[in-house]
Amino acid sequence: MIEVELKDNERIDDLQIKGYKLIQNREGFCFGMDAVLLSDYARIRKGSRVMDLCSGTGIIPVLLAAKYEPAGIVGMEIQADYVEMAGRSVRMNGLQEIIRMEEGNVCQVPDNYPSNSFDFVTCNPPYMTGNHGLSNKNRNMALARHEILCTLDDVVSAAAWLLKAGGHFVMVHRPFRLAEIIACLKAHKLEPKRMRLVYPYVDKEPNMVLIDAAKGGRQRITVDPPLIVYHQDGTYTEEIYRIYGMNQTREASGPWDQTRP
Amino acid sequence: MIEVELKDNERIDDLQIKGYKLIQNREGFCFGMDAVLLSDYARIRKGSRVMDLCSGTGIIPVLLAAKYEPAGIVGMEIQADYVEMAGRSVRMNGLQEIIRMEEGNVCQVPDNYPSNSFDFVTCNPPYMTGNHGLSNKNRNMALARHEILCTLDDVVSAAAWLLKAGGHFVMVHRPFRLAEIIACLKAHKLEPKRMRLVYPYVDKEPNMVLIDAAKGGRQRITVDPPLIVYHQDGTYTEEIYRIYGMNQTREASGPWDQTRP
Repeated sequence: MIEVELKDNERIDDLQIKGYKLIQNREGFCFGMDAVLLSDYARIRKGSRVMDLCSGTGIIPVLLAAKYEPAGIVGMEIQADYVEMAGRSVRMNGLQEIIRMEEGNVCQVPDNYPSNSFDFVTCNPPYMTGNHGLSNKNRNMALARHEILCTLDDVVSAAAWLLKAGGHFVMVHRPFRLAEIIACLKAHKLEPKRMRLVYPYVDKEPNMVLIDAAKGGRQRITVDPPLIVYHQDGTYTEEIYRIYGMNQTREASGPWDQTRP
Repeated sequence: MIEVELKDNERIDDLQIKGYKLIQNREGFCFGMDAVLLSDYARIRKGSRVMDLCSGTGIIPVLLAAKYEPAGIVGMEIQADYVEMAGRSVRMNGLQEIIRMEEGNVCQVPDNYPSNSFDFVTCNPPYMTGNHGLSNKNRNMALARHEILCTLDDVVSAAAWLLKAGGHFVMVHRPFRLAEIIACLKAHKLEPKRMRLVYPYVDKEPNMVLIDAAKGGRQRITVDPPLIVYHQDGTYTEEIYRIYGMNQTREASGPWDQTRP
């Protein structure tokens, strides 16, 4: 593990996979269960080129590098301070041969990247439109949560540009936007092929949706079994333990126990 | 209960609600759990005018009349022998003031009905496209299961024509067509507002999707808690018992235990 400098208000969290760690700002946006579930759902093929849009702390690239064997991952993020912090996380884990964090705007992807150049695009985008949820006083938090700098259509449009034919766009989002997400994907010729709803409890509405769309795919979707997070007694289900790679006797706590609101 | 004549190969099934019964042809298409779940999901407002497309045996109109207080229900069906048989079921239950079975083609709805004239449209349409599932030698069965006489787009287009602004289209279908369904609804300005996935077991893929779209509605969907049909031991869950209106000690059997393939 390479030593890196920490700034005020930064902490290091143990990702509990391959010894990897992540630098996060205590007062900024910290990753949640959505990032963990997305990285598990993405099923990156060995040797793939991957782009992670709205990459933030770099959590998705680091988890993808831990779980799969991609040829390379670009983590694109618009906020310069996040790019710098995520870059230190990459170096701390010795992943600089695999992951490159780049400052970039989702809306300007065609100006900065060639089309048809990635096998996978992942994204854990801002979930909230202007009308949903309160805006956040902390600018970093607000940008991560609300569609201020980029909309769903901007993200999907960028993914459609970047992907090779047959390449996959894998995203986590909120179920209340599911109809809009599906229509938007199809409008950009990204055909939804797999979808999984994440239900906190078996008798509750889902609070996340994982969706995998293929560029130019045929029209037929597999809806996966429900992903239930908690047993009725509040303990994690076996599948959540499996995804987190944790021994079931070990307590789940800390950085894992948060979902992007 | 009014006496009606039964033809060869017909049987009468007890719907276990308000004493209503239904005539079905033993060799033809018999209703399944999908019809029961659809009628429960439809939430028809008192005094509404309802159109049931692809009405077949008339099961949906009879169940809607049993569960709600609509002003009237039209059951439209293209096969004349089904219309005649369903008409006898309606008279047998004394529902001829509420339900009118009509022979009609979904593709010719604008020629035969005024636009903006119904509060609810329901449909349990043929699920299979030409490419999915085997065609059936029995013509009645094949027409009920395959998109031979009408496609998904025909059904949605008819519903969009028939509904008043703000009226609801409620449909049951197969999850593998979910992306197509949502895109089709939105293309016809029927905005998906509620959706529920029906999972046979908590750890299995869903085999039905219930969807409720509002004509001209705003873009935001509520995904309901999962509807799980069976406990791991193969007994029905409490919610299935509730929907069927059955006492949990009573055995579920016979006409209920079938799903349109």
